[in-house]
Amino acid sequence: MKVGILGGGQLGRMLLQAAANYTVETFVLENDANCPSAHLCHHFTKGDITDFETVYHFGKNLDAITIEIESVNVDALDKLEKEGVKIYPTPAAIRIIKNKIIQKQFYKEHGIPSSDFIITNNKEDLKTNTHLLPAVHKIGEGGYDGKGVQVINSISDIEKAFDAPSVLEQKVAIQKEIALIVAINEKGATAIYPVSEMMVNPVLNLLDYQLSPALIPEKALWVVEAVAIKLVKALNSPGLFAVELFIDKNEEVWVNETAPRVHNSGHHTIEANHCSQYDMLWRIILGYPLGNTSPILPAAIINIIGTDNYSGDAIYEGLEEVLQIDNAFVHLYGKKQTKPGRKMGHVTLLHNNYQDLTHKANKVKNLLKVKS
Amino acid sequence: MKVGILGGGQLGRMLLQAAANYTVETFVLENDANCPSAHLCHHFTKGDITDFETVYHFGKNLDAITIEIESVNVDALDKLEKEGVKIYPTPAAIRIIKNKIIQKQFYKEHGIPSSDFIITNNKEDLKTNTHLLPAVHKIGEGGYDGKGVQVINSISDIEKAFDAPSVLEQKVAIQKEIALIVAINEKGATAIYPVSEMMVNPVLNLLDYQLSPALIPEKALWVVEAVAIKLVKALNSPGLFAVELFIDKNEEVWVNETAPRVHNSGHHTIEANHCSQYDMLWRIILGYPLGNTSPILPAAIINIIGTDNYSGDAIYEGLEEVLQIDNAFVHLYGKKQTKPGRKMGHVTLLHNNYQDLTHKANKVKNLLKVKS
Repeated sequence: MKVGILGGGQLGRMLLQAAANYTVETFVLENDANCPSAHLCHHFTKGDITDFETVYHFGKNLDAITIEIESVNVDALDKLEKEGVKIYPTPAAIRIIKNKIIQKQFYKEHGIPSSDFIITNNKEDLKTNTHLLPAVHKIGEGGYDGKGVQVINSISDIEKAFDAPSVLEQKVAIQKEIALIVAINEKGATAIYPVSEMMVNPVLNLLDYQLSPALIPEKALWVVEAVAIKLVKALNSPGLFAVELFIDKNEEVWVNETAPRVHNSGHHTIEANHCSQYDMLWRIILGYPLGNTSPILPAAIINIIGTDNYSGDAIYEGLEEVLQIDNAFVHLYGKKQTKPGRKMGHVTLLHNNYQDLTHKANKVKNLLKVKS
Repeated sequence: MKVGILGGGQLGRMLLQAAANYTVETFVLENDANCPSAHLCHHFTKGDITDFETVYHFGKNLDAITIEIESVNVDALDKLEKEGVKIYPTPAAIRIIKNKIIQKQFYKEHGIPSSDFIITNNKEDLKTNTHLLPAVHKIGEGGYDGKGVQVINSISDIEKAFDAPSVLEQKVAIQKEIALIVAINEKGATAIYPVSEMMVNPVLNLLDYQLSPALIPEKALWVVEAVAIKLVKALNSPGLFAVELFIDKNEEVWVNETAPRVHNSGHHTIEANHCSQYDMLWRIILGYPLGNTSPILPAAIINIIGTDNYSGDAIYEGLEEVLQIDNAFVHLYGKKQTKPGRKMGHVTLLHNNYQDLTHKANKVKNLLKVKS
C-alpha cells in the first residue's frame, strides 16, 4: 500500500518510525528537504503542502494520504478523494477543523459544549462585543502552536486583536486543561486514550509539561469521554483526533479545539500505552483492528524547546543526566537549527507515583537546554 | 554523530526505527538495495559487507560502526578502529564470535561452561572422535539461522558432517534452551535483560516461539546471569550481546553460542521492556547511560516465516485476526519476496498469564501464513 504524509515534521517522523512495522510504502511531501521525516520514508518530495497542484500531483498515484499538520490544500484532497484516494481524515473533516470559525460553528450545530463566541471580521467587530470579555481571540486560519491566539481581557487589549476573520470566544474559568485522543476506523469502531492534563506555560503559551492519565473527578471524566466520542463521531471520518478540553471551576466540560491528526498530547503513548497513537493511525489506514490504548504506567511529557537567546546549530545540554533517570525516554527531532521557542524534541517519563513523576518532570525541565 | 551499520536486514531496520529518537546520522552498507533498512537511513550504500575495500571506504568518514550480522570483513574494521572509528562491538570481539572454533576456544580459556568439543578439519576427523557422539557439528565460519549446523547422533550420520574446519560439540541433554541479552558500555557498566526461553521447531531448526521472562529455577537463573556477565566482560568490548545457553536435565548451565549484536531473541523488548535492545545499543554508541531492562508484561515472540511451497511476492494471510488479539504487535520486515523458511516478520504478544500467552502464541502460529 502506498501512503503519503502531508508535512515532514516531528509528527511525520514518529509516524514513519511506526510505519516500519508494516509493509506500507511511504511518501512525504514537505518544503524543507532537511525536515525530520525526509530520510525515514521511501520517497521524499520537496514541495508546498498548501499548493493545489503540488498536493494533487503528489497524491494522485497513492492509495491513501494522511496529514501531520492541518494547513494543507484541502481542495486538492477533495479532488483526490473523488478519484479514489483514501484520505485520513476526510477532506470534509479537515475543512471543519482547519478554520477555527467553522470549527466553533460545528460544535454549536452538534451540541458539543464549547464556550460562547462570535465571529469577528476585523478589530472593529470586537468593540461592539465587549460583553464576551474576558475572551480569547483566535484567527480563523493559519494559527499554530499558540501563534494566532490572543487573550483579550479588557477593552484596552483590543488593539492586539486580529484584523482578519477570527473567532472571539468567552474565556473559560479553567480548572484543568486536558486533552484526549480518539481513534475511529472505517467501520466506526472507536478507541479512546486516557485523558492527559496539560500544564501550560503562560509566557510562551506552549505546553510546559503534561501528565497522563490525568487525575480528574470521575464524573467529569465520564462527561469528557462522552463529549469527545460525540464530537469525533459527528466529524464522520475515520482517523485519529486529539480533542482539547477545559474543565472549569464548576467541573463543567468545554471543548477548546480539535486536531485531526496525531498530536503532541499523545507523544507519551509511544512508551506509556501498549499501542501508540502512531501505530493506531497506521492500523486505521491499513484497515487493521484498533490497538490497545491501556496505559502501562503514568507518564509525563516535557517538551524540549529552543532556549531564549540561542539561534543556530543545536547543542543539547543535560542529555546524559536526563537519560540517567529511570524510564526517561528522549526523542530528538533531528532539527539542525535551534531558535527560541522551537520544538526540538520531547522527553517522556514513566513512574507509578504522580508526585515523583512531577518532581522528575521539573528536574528534566531544569536539566535539559537547547543552546547553539 | 555519523554511525554506520553493516548489514541492512530486519535487525538494521529496527535499529533505525530506534535511531530516530536521537540526532544520529545513519549510514547503511548492504548488497541489496531493496533490503529492509534501505529507506530508513540517511545514507544507503550498496556494497558487500565481506569485502575489505568496500567496508573500509564505507567506514572511513564515520564516527562509529555497528553490525547487524557477524559475517563482515573484520580486517577492515581493525584498520578503521586503528584510525579512530569506534566499532561496537570491537573487531577483536567480533573475530572471537564470528568463527565458532575460536568462540569455543574462548569459552574454554575463560572458564565459561560450554560442552566438550574438538576441532575437526574434515569429515575424517570425526571418525577418530566418536566418543563425543551424540554431538553437534558446527562449521567454523558462514553458518546462519541453523544452516552450518548438523546433528551427528551416531557414526552413520558422519556422512553429512562438514568437510571444512568445524567444531564437534558433545550434545547437551537439554531441559531448556534459553537466551539473554547483556548490554555493556564503554565504562564497563552492564544491563541485563530477563532470560528468554526458546521453543525450537526441530524440523526447520528455527525458533518456533519464545517466552520471556523464562520460567526457570531460581538457582539456575542465578548461574545463567553470572555466566553471561562473565562471558560478556571477558569479551572486553562495549556493545550488546545475546548469549544463548542450555539448562540440562541436571539443571547445569552450558553456553551454546553468543551473538555480538542485537538479536532475534530480543525482538520482544520493543513492546515488553521499557528500554528495547535497539534503544539500548544506541545509548551505548552515543555514550548515554544504559536504559531500564525491566519487563512490562510477559511476552511471546512468534516468527513469521515463509510457508513451504510458496515463493514470490509475499501475501500475508491472517494479519487482521492476529491484530484483533489484545496486545498483539506485528512487525513485517518489508521483504517483497517470500520463500520457504525465510524470516518475513514477527509478532510480539503480551499477557500477564503464561498459559494464555502460550495459547495465543499457538493461535498466531496457526492464523498467520506468508504465501505468494
